[in-house]
Amino acid sequence: VSSQGRTPDARGPGGPTAADAGEFGLIDAILAATAAAAPGGRLDAAQVPIGPGDDAALLALAGPQVLVSTDMLVEGRHFRRDWSEAADIGTRAAAANLADIAAMGGYPRALLVGFGAPPDTPVAWVRELAGALAAEAGTVGAVVIGGDTVAAPQVVLAITVLGEAAPGGPVTRAGARPGDVVAVAGRLGWAAAGLAVLRRGFRSPRAAVNALRRPEPPYAAGPAAALAGARAMIDVSDGLLADLGHLARASGVAVDLDPATLVVDEPVAAVGAALNTDPLDFVLTGGDDHALVACFPSDVALPGGWRRIGRVQVPSGDGAEAVVTVGGVVRSGPTGHRHFTA
Amino acid sequence: VSSQGRTPDARGPGGPTAADAGEFGLIDAILAATAAAAPGGRLDAAQVPIGPGDDAALLALAGPQVLVSTDMLVEGRHFRRDWSEAADIGTRAAAANLADIAAMGGYPRALLVGFGAPPDTPVAWVRELAGALAAEAGTVGAVVIGGDTVAAPQVVLAITVLGEAAPGGPVTRAGARPGDVVAVAGRLGWAAAGLAVLRRGFRSPRAAVNALRRPEPPYAAGPAAALAGARAMIDVSDGLLADLGHLARASGVAVDLDPATLVVDEPVAAVGAALNTDPLDFVLTGGDDHALVACFPSDVALPGGWRRIGRVQVPSGDGAEAVVTVGGVVRSGPTGHRHFTA
Repeated sequence: VSSQGRTPDARGPGGPTAADAGEFGLIDAILAATAAAAPGGRLDAAQVPIGPGDDAALLALAGPQVLVSTDMLVEGRHFRRDWSEAADIGTRAAAANLADIAAMGGYPRALLVGFGAPPDTPVAWVRELAGALAAEAGTVGAVVIGGDTVAAPQVVLAITVLGEAAPGGPVTRAGARPGDVVAVAGRLGWAAAGLAVLRRGFRSPRAAVNALRRPEPPYAAGPAAALAGARAMIDVSDGLLADLGHLARASGVAVDLDPATLVVDEPVAAVGAALNTDPLDFVLTGGDDHALVACFPSDVALPGGWRRIGRVQVPSGDGAEAVVTVGGVVRSGPTGHRHFTA
Repeated sequence: VSSQGRTPDARGPGGPTAADAGEFGLIDAILAATAAAAPGGRLDAAQVPIGPGDDAALLALAGPQVLVSTDMLVEGRHFRRDWSEAADIGTRAAAANLADIAAMGGYPRALLVGFGAPPDTPVAWVRELAGALAAEAGTVGAVVIGGDTVAAPQVVLAITVLGEAAPGGPVTRAGARPGDVVAVAGRLGWAAAGLAVLRRGFRSPRAAVNALRRPEPPYAAGPAAALAGARAMIDVSDGLLADLGHLARASGVAVDLDPATLVVDEPVAAVGAALNTDPLDFVLTGGDDHALVACFPSDVALPGGWRRIGRVQVPSGDGAEAVVTVGGVVRSGPTGHRHFTA
């Protein structure tokens, strides 16, 4: 994973391109790759009575409510073809969407994949991406049921995920109450540390780089939190401080994190040491690991995989933006990454 | 609608840009524009228990099955900002997706909108697009329940539509049988004629140009066909010959169109005369009007808005690609437009 090494794979010669295959040939390649990831090599007709290839797909749910979310990823902003292999990009794209359903305390059931790419994109590259995307979905029993392909100046992925809530209903961002325990499941700062490494042209520590390339969101922790009585939940995609800020504002509360519980994992610490930066910045402001953070009533035993990191408080009432503190102190600097800054 | 006239609106000075507003400011602007299109200025909490702003939206359906489809539109390929105002682009994007649900014999219920744009895109332009998109959805009672915004080198729209099937279930492309009547609802060739006009730098006839800018798919004709017993259906987005070809191959049949019933509407005829081209080409190969074409048992009385244009036949069995004929003859030339041709 050097900063130039992958270019030949991504754009160079070697097999037919999207333009060679044409729209329908490309769709066939994607469908073959995604079908191979489904159990038995094909969709379950009871779960997906009408699969890809018609004007719309038909998904059978357990009940009359559907959780749905959509995400766009643009080459050069969310991923680089010279830093990530096709399979990594597909895995990350799926993970980001599946984590959105987990963050509602739900179970992802199906994905639709909008795929834009330059005409010279190798079909093999597309197939690898689609296969990895479907395989990541398959880890939680979700399947690819539709999509669209278009020619575009750069690779664009638009993924929609459909899911079902755990019994008891979805967990929103808006239910936290003062006194609740704030807890996290999953990694914090690993992917951000990996990105910092890649940006400087390094490729180790591998654990951090791999965390960026292939996140491991704690999918099952989402419905587990819902079933345990979590009152508010969000996935960490913009950064812990930023996303807890969204939750706190939606709930009308403040959050104080306990510095003693903010563990810096070994690969994150190693990157901090190597780059001479505070590794806690990765933990507090890094996204892309898709950890889950939730607020539980203080008398609830946290489900497996969850660890306490703070407490929900009464907001100060002065309308301040800084509703998330660390050890009672507002942390200076950015809380997470922003889009639309040129 | 000249080929240069709109550039100042689309990119020039005049109010804050997406970069000025930031990701969350832009989302707020989009949500304000879409909410204004919902009845009473807000989403019905019974239909949408959880709306935009959380990790996922929750949509309440009448039953445990959901129709879903996704479409991507890329600036420079599917639309041009100098040929189309923001409201036109939003309207067309919504129409294309809503028509996909109609083509299954279904009722669209909700849209999710992925929106990519350059940082210098005026917020007012985005707001106009989002408002028109939501207003088009509102004509069939569908609402915008979520989305995503990203910075991208050009405007990209990724729209996902969720809907419900008419009683009796969805109508796929695969159910046509020899002897069925082929019928169409909606316009044929209008938008293609409008595009031909714009490509040559003209702006009239207005009816054709407006058909491209603001298509009028016959949404209600979809479930009406399903309830009347249609056995196969598709929406005309690639062209009548191309899309009937998809249907014929999915059904394992051939289709013969009756030339006497292929009416060339007045604006289409006018464009053909002005450009010295056969207007029947627009009728047979033009998409973007999102007409619906369906196959009905021969003893069914066609519902209102549907007109007979041909007959389903036994396929020749020689594996020929040309499964759609006009008066028994294979029409030469393209059957519709293709993506991924450089």
